[in-house]
Amino acid sequence: MDIKRAVEKCYFFTHNVFEYKGFKKAIIGISGGLDSAVVAAICCKALGKENVYGYMLPCGHQYDIEDSVTVCNTLGINQQTIDIQQLVEPFRLVEENILFDKQRIANIKARVRMIVLYDMSMKHNGLVVGTSNLTELMLGYFTLHGDGACALEPIGHLFKTEVREVAKELGIPEEIITKAPSAGLWEGQTDEEEIGCSYEIIDAILRHRLLIPAESPEDITEIIDAISIELETPIKTVDKILTRMQNNSFKLKSPTIMRR
Amino acid sequence: MDIKRAVEKCYFFTHNVFEYKGFKKAIIGISGGLDSAVVAAICCKALGKENVYGYMLPCGHQYDIEDSVTVCNTLGINQQTIDIQQLVEPFRLVEENILFDKQRIANIKARVRMIVLYDMSMKHNGLVVGTSNLTELMLGYFTLHGDGACALEPIGHLFKTEVREVAKELGIPEEIITKAPSAGLWEGQTDEEEIGCSYEIIDAILRHRLLIPAESPEDITEIIDAISIELETPIKTVDKILTRMQNNSFKLKSPTIMRR
Repeated sequence: MDIKRAVEKCYFFTHNVFEYKGFKKAIIGISGGLDSAVVAAICCKALGKENVYGYMLPCGHQYDIEDSVTVCNTLGINQQTIDIQQLVEPFRLVEENILFDKQRIANIKARVRMIVLYDMSMKHNGLVVGTSNLTELMLGYFTLHGDGACALEPIGHLFKTEVREVAKELGIPEEIITKAPSAGLWEGQTDEEEIGCSYEIIDAILRHRLLIPAESPEDITEIIDAISIELETPIKTVDKILTRMQNNSFKLKSPTIMRR
Repeated sequence: MDIKRAVEKCYFFTHNVFEYKGFKKAIIGISGGLDSAVVAAICCKALGKENVYGYMLPCGHQYDIEDSVTVCNTLGINQQTIDIQQLVEPFRLVEENILFDKQRIANIKARVRMIVLYDMSMKHNGLVVGTSNLTELMLGYFTLHGDGACALEPIGHLFKTEVREVAKELGIPEEIITKAPSAGLWEGQTDEEEIGCSYEIIDAILRHRLLIPAESPEDITEIIDAISIELETPIKTVDKILTRMQNNSFKLKSPTIMRR
């Protein structure tokens, strides 16, 4: 990958999408992780930092909140912190046990953040800018109508490992680049532990998957075998990644509607 | 329209989508209006009423809440009422003035309902079933990631005026069919007053619009003229409807992502 050119393309894309849609201001949730830092930096260059609004949305105590402050301060963007715990907590009233189900509560948090960001986009007449990378999109590693909700995805065409390269070129602080990627679903959670695979291997598998157009169910075993041999990676690992991709593919689809 | 056949097709479609996606239970927000009543009735026939979960989600006092109870009782589906006011109110803490902006608060309510319905779909291992009709979809008359969020739209191919015909065939209570359609955004609000046009005229305009494939910006004036003449409807009315359609078309699109 020609990094300088890749970064230029991100600027150009973001600038053009805003112009085409007729908006000037970018609304971004800043998590303290790599992806949102990179997207915010791209928006600064494409739109001017005065048009970038970073929202830090911790749910109660967030162990790495200082990293998100660092991102906002380094870039010099507009910033606001909103503790979403006060918004998430009342869902306990609906059903006592929601907040004890890790996955359900993770989805509620992601969707409450969506509500806040979309509301801020209405306040500022801006667009919610997504921070998903291609790895997350292909794996469906996001909450539908939560962090997956946005008008554009400036790094949606880049694998996680590529986002790291882009981040270096953009001058993102070293500690943000090297920290273990985490969806922040719970303290100490890391993506790689949860998915059970390093991003290097995941991206290599997905990169090969992109090269194989065939998608008939009969072929899936052959595809797994081929990638496993090519990458010298256990069949079990390839299977796990491609099964996750298959199972979550619905998240990228619009609602099913009958043809007239 | 052959009504009996149209109704059969709705059953068949809904049954097949559930089978294809591997789910049995339907999660539906029951508003007391026509569309959700029709969708619930279709789901009862397609999946069995024991698999249909109707959620009544008033925000504080809802003047026509009894209509939604009537719908649930008539169909004999599982039902639960959750007052979302307790979930919406805390958003006032984020910003005092949110709750005084009609449009922002309407979006927050619609999105809070989405969170509840998606959470219930996870609890019951079901699919959230949408209740948008073709008129609403074409006009973008819904909240993105709010009432527009679902796995399938069983009446998404039917204009509002067609949904009324289908409702009669399904035996929906007369008072539900004849009441003035309302998004329930505020008391006394009716769709037709807000859009400024009767559904008969809106549907006639949209039906003609569907027949015209051309979409270049140069053609829009010609399209408006042609429909205006054909329907003997003022240019101003046609313009208003097609402009709304154009301005909201973004709601039907996925986030913009760069090609690799």
